Amino acid sequence: MKKAMKKADVVVIGGSAAGLVAAITSRRHYPEKSVLLVRKEKQVLIPCGIPYIFGTVGSPEKNLIPDAALEKNGIELVVDEATDIDGEGCVVMTAGGERIGYQKLVLATGSRPIVPPIPGVDKQNIFAIKKDVPYLQQLLDVLDSASDLVIVGCGFIGVELAEECRKGRKDINVRIVEMLRHCLQLVYDDEFCVKAEEVLRTKGIDLLLDEKVEAFLGDGKVEGVKLASGREIKADAVIMGIGAAANVELARKAGLEIGPCRGIQVNRYMQTSDVNIFACGDCAEKISFFDGKPSGLKLASIATMEARIVGANLFSPRRVNTGVIGVYSTILGDTAFAAAGLTAAVAREKGYTIIVGEAEAINRHPGGMPGAMPLKVKLIFEAGSRVILGGQVSGARSGGELINAISACIHKRMTADDIATFQTGTHPGLTASPIAYQLVNAAEMAIANSWKLSTRW
Amino acid sequence: MKKAMKKADVVVIGGSAAGLVAAITSRRHYPEKSVLLVRKEKQVLIPCGIPYIFGTVGSPEKNLIPDAALEKNGIELVVDEATDIDGEGCVVMTAGGERIGYQKLVLATGSRPIVPPIPGVDKQNIFAIKKDVPYLQQLLDVLDSASDLVIVGCGFIGVELAEECRKGRKDINVRIVEMLRHCLQLVYDDEFCVKAEEVLRTKGIDLLLDEKVEAFLGDGKVEGVKLASGREIKADAVIMGIGAAANVELARKAGLEIGPCRGIQVNRYMQTSDVNIFACGDCAEKISFFDGKPSGLKLASIATMEARIVGANLFSPRRVNTGVIGVYSTILGDTAFAAAGLTAAVAREKGYTIIVGEAEAINRHPGGMPGAMPLKVKLIFEAGSRVILGGQVSGARSGGELINAISACIHKRMTADDIATFQTGTHPGLTASPIAYQLVNAAEMAIANSWKLSTRW
Repeated sequence: MKKAMKKADVVVIGGSAAGLVAAITSRRHYPEKSVLLVRKEKQVLIPCGIPYIFGTVGSPEKNLIPDAALEKNGIELVVDEATDIDGEGCVVMTAGGERIGYQKLVLATGSRPIVPPIPGVDKQNIFAIKKDVPYLQQLLDVLDSASDLVIVGCGFIGVELAEECRKGRKDINVRIVEMLRHCLQLVYDDEFCVKAEEVLRTKGIDLLLDEKVEAFLGDGKVEGVKLASGREIKADAVIMGIGAAANVELARKAGLEIGPCRGIQVNRYMQTSDVNIFACGDCAEKISFFDGKPSGLKLASIATMEARIVGANLFSPRRVNTGVIGVYSTILGDTAFAAAGLTAAVAREKGYTIIVGEAEAINRHPGGMPGAMPLKVKLIFEAGSRVILGGQVSGARSGGELINAISACIHKRMTADDIATFQTGTHPGLTASPIAYQLVNAAEMAIANSWKLSTRW
Repeated sequence: MKKAMKKADVVVIGGSAAGLVAAITSRRHYPEKSVLLVRKEKQVLIPCGIPYIFGTVGSPEKNLIPDAALEKNGIELVVDEATDIDGEGCVVMTAGGERIGYQKLVLATGSRPIVPPIPGVDKQNIFAIKKDVPYLQQLLDVLDSASDLVIVGCGFIGVELAEECRKGRKDINVRIVEMLRHCLQLVYDDEFCVKAEEVLRTKGIDLLLDEKVEAFLGDGKVEGVKLASGREIKADAVIMGIGAAANVELARKAGLEIGPCRGIQVNRYMQTSDVNIFACGDCAEKISFFDGKPSGLKLASIATMEARIVGANLFSPRRVNTGVIGVYSTILGDTAFAAAGLTAAVAREKGYTIIVGEAEAINRHPGGMPGAMPLKVKLIFEAGSRVILGGQVSGARSGGELINAISACIHKRMTADDIATFQTGTHPGLTASPIAYQLVNAAEMAIANSWKLSTRW
């Protein structure tokens, strides 16, 4: 018996950050349109919260995006897997045999962890970070009886997982193997990376930098890791944290164009090569805010930004995607690390002549106020125009919001003079003094440093 | 015997936030120029830290701006009172008989508390908040033996002093008398004021709102306060916290123009009516960033912003003052309150048609992460252009930096769409999730609310 065809004005495929926000935004912008969201997961994990399942939070069930937001916004939910799209007929087919008609379709199919074909990578107790509740529960069980954990990749997932896995498991040895010279090297300049490494080492985490995995050893279960340097390390659990690849199979089957970073190709309005189909989040191709070149960045905060563009543009293009800046934050021990835009190293690689300014101050005034901690800001500007290219922050937790002030400056291409004379709110119990305020002083120091670079001196 | 005349390329009068920052900025922008700073105080208090002397910090000596910044930046210090300026001869005269020649002069003479001519205001144990170490030490001594403190004025100084005076003095009765209907009413909309009042009441502070002081009672020492409503309240200590007036005597004597808010008149480059004399900080006249009208705002963060304009402009105008936005923050109990720009009430009074959006979320994700606290953002936009006019924040301490992201948005006159698609850094241990991020969602809600206002619906 053939099921009756479902229909909605807007159909969204994918229920994580991008899909959910695209659905909500479309309801906000076009309240007269019906919205249906199809996702294959019964429960949706908070993506950035996954490392915290293994320590602070304690279980996958405590790290879920509640479905209340769907109900509250009048969005119909179908838990099923979309298997095909008929772009001409405007119909989505599902594994459960549903046919769902749409006027506008949003692809928010996300990404999956990259697992490179290293010999032995299919051994037992080698995990990647899949956004899947039962899988992560299994990893949690393995960790609880593991004595030697090896994490491959020292990006955000790697460092956060390492610290969390040590919490409440004081007997576990945690080692991170990283190909690059430093942890978090793609996001921070060296001095910030070194600071992060210091924190990790005080937490008892062993960092094997500038090292490559050659093979996973063991018989059935993983027992060790062989490195390219020849060294062998013990391992009864391995986590791969080396990046993610866009889920584009559905889009590819539907004949949609795929971009140079293997995401679903979109224009500035986030339309795919089919004008009625939009894509956003990890599955969508991206360009850099700075030079417009293809970018492989994948972040939940980029996903939600793109989803807000998609939701607003469905029935009339209203918002333009200016490209990804890359705004990050994390906390290791008690030290927050945040970054936005280009590092000095990346800016130079991209061909910019830059000026740099730094300022460090206590996040209270006077310094005797409770909660006083240092907070450092580094800003990078193009030398001639003095337009901001990036910023990095480390220290007190309020740095997690300070980076968003820096992001606003980048969005509006503020100059060092704009930032130096920017009016800030400051308070003894919340921030540095207005005299010492780090963002403003880092801009001033970049200008002062620029005199030294100019031919005048 | 006549003293030899001192000389410096730049002379700054005043050693608090504005003077110090003007001196440092001038050294950064014109490193070849000599800078001399004249101030009458031996020690300089951190202005915003003054309320905390009476509780958390404990003494005026622990709330000083160290002179190390002067030395570090090669600035000569003269502790003496400037009494006259010879603008034609470019010479400053001091009470100590010095004559100091300048090329460029900066007036940063600050402000003093307003003490209205209420009958009995000259009685003993009635204080204002003078930026003076021995005076504040005397107030501290009086408070330590007082049993009934009355604070007149429920602005920032009033509410912060009230809370601090209760710390470690559980037996003191603290009452605040305020003419307006709410505390902090000039800076926050009513719902934020009410929240602040709730916090103050839980701290055992008695608020007498919509009440006016008619007279101070007592024989020599103050013993009570008579209110316009007829009520009389006990008082053995009174603190006046009702605002400040610019110190312009020196400028007036020198024949400089005085502005409509009784500050030293300046142009957009912060030059006074004498092209070689600049003014900044509380002593300088200001205009609103929004409508360009004269503004009486006096804030340390405005003072340092103006000082950074003055320091850069001394030998060639480089920076323009676009007027004061007004960015504030404070913390009462464990709740931060911050604001930037216009409140909804003030915007309406100024003739704007506005749209408003609000969003509240926990400052962590998932909510089980340690340190989880609610954080609420309210944004106000002009309805037609959707340009941001102001924002208010209450809740977690990170709101103290979030307000600076809002300030950046105001500076660059971002629209609700700009803010809604603004890329933010978010992290489980530092902020709300990217789905729930308050700043972005408040902008979205303002747009959603605008549909309801438009004729379409």
